[in-house]
Amino acid sequence: MENDNTLRRLKTVEGHLRGVIRMVEEDSYCIDVIRQIQAVEAALNKVSSMILEDHLNSCVITAIQGDDQKERERVLKEITEVFEMSTKV
Amino acid sequence: MENDNTLRRLKTVEGHLRGVIRMVEEDSYCIDVIRQIQAVEAALNKVSSMILEDHLNSCVITAIQGDDQKERERVLKEITEVFEMSTKV
Amino acid sequence: MENDNTLRRLKTVEGHLRGVIRMVEEDSYCIDVIRQIQAVEAALNKVSSMILEDHLNSCVITAIQGDDQKERERVLKEITEVFEMSTKV
Amino acid sequence: MENDNTLRRLKTVEGHLRGVIRMVEEDSYCIDVIRQIQAVEAALNKVSSMILEDHLNSCVITAIQGDDQKERERVLKEITEVFEMSTKV
Repeated sequence: MENDNTLRRLKTVEGHLRGVIRMVEEDSYCIDVIRQIQAVEAALNKVSSMILEDHLNSCVITAIQGDDQKERERVLKEITEVFEMSTKV
Repeated sequence: MENDNTLRRLKTVEGHLRGVIRMVEEDSYCIDVIRQIQAVEAALNKVSSMILEDHLNSCVITAIQGDDQKERERVLKEITEVFEMSTKV
Repeated sequence: MENDNTLRRLKTVEGHLRGVIRMVEEDSYCIDVIRQIQAVEAALNKVSSMILEDHLNSCVITAIQGDDQKERERVLKEITEVFEMSTKV
Repeated sequence: MENDNTLRRLKTVEGHLRGVIRMVEEDSYCIDVIRQIQAVEAALNKVSSMILEDHLNSCVITAIQGDDQKERERVLKEITEVFEMSTKV
C-alpha cells in the first residue's frame, strides 16, 4: 500500500471528524453537522478507492499471475465483496 | 458475462420499475414510491456486483496473465473507476 | 405528487434500463454495462429526491400543521427511514 | 440536538478511525483496511440519521408551525438537499 499518501489523507479525515465533534459540542445547526459528516464520508470513499487501486496493482496482479488457484479466487472474491459493500454504505 | 442470470435479473428489475411507474400513475403514497425505487436500486446493485464478479473471473484474469501491460493497466483502472462511482450512486 | 414530471423521468429511466438489457443481450463489455447501471441508479436517486421534495411540501406540511400528533410522528419517522435507507442503496 | 448520544457515537467513530490509521501504519492487508473504512462510513450514516431525526422533531416542526413562509421553505429545502447528497456518499 502507498502508505504515506493514504496515511496523510486519513489523518486529514480524522481532523475533519474532530471538527464535526466540536460542531456538535458547540451545538451547531443540525443540517450543517450532517453536511460535514457527508463530506467526511466522501473523503473516506476517496481513500478507499486509492487503497483499492494500489491493491489491484500489487497483491491482485501477484495473485493472478501466481500458481495458486485458491489464492487467485480468494483475491477476486474480496474485490467483489468490497464493491458490493460500497453500494451499501 | 453469464448472460442468462444477469438478463433474468435485469428483466425482473424492469418489471419492478414498471410497477413503480404504475404506482405513480395511480397516485400512490410518495414514501411508498420512494421505498420501491430504493428496492429497485438495491436490486441493480446486486446485478452490478454479479457482473463485476464475472468480469474479474474472465477478462481481468486474461488481461493480467497476458503480455500487454497497457491492457492490464486499463482493465485495473476500470475496476477502481466503477468502485469509486459505486460510492456515489 | 407532481405526477407528470415524475412519470416522465421514470419512463426515461425505464427506456435507459431497457437499453442496458439490450447491451447484455448483445454481449456488451461488462464494465460498460456496470457504468450504465450506475447511470440508471443516479437517475433514480434524482427521481426519489424530487418525490421527497413534493412530499415535504404537501403531506408533511399538512401533517405537521394538523392536530393529529400520531400522524405527525408517523410522517416524520418515515422521512428518517427513507433517509437512512438512502445511505444503504 | 440530542447532543450526548450523538457525541458519544461520534467519539466512538473517531476511535474506530484512529484504529484504521493504525492499521495503515502497521501495513495491514488493504482489503481489511477498506472494510474498516466502510464500517466507519456505516456508523457515520447512522449518526446522520439520528441527527436528522432530532432535527425533524424540533427545528422542522417549529418552522412548519411558524408563520415565516421563507423559513419553512428553507428548512424543507435543506432536507431534500441532505437526502440527495446521502445518495451520493
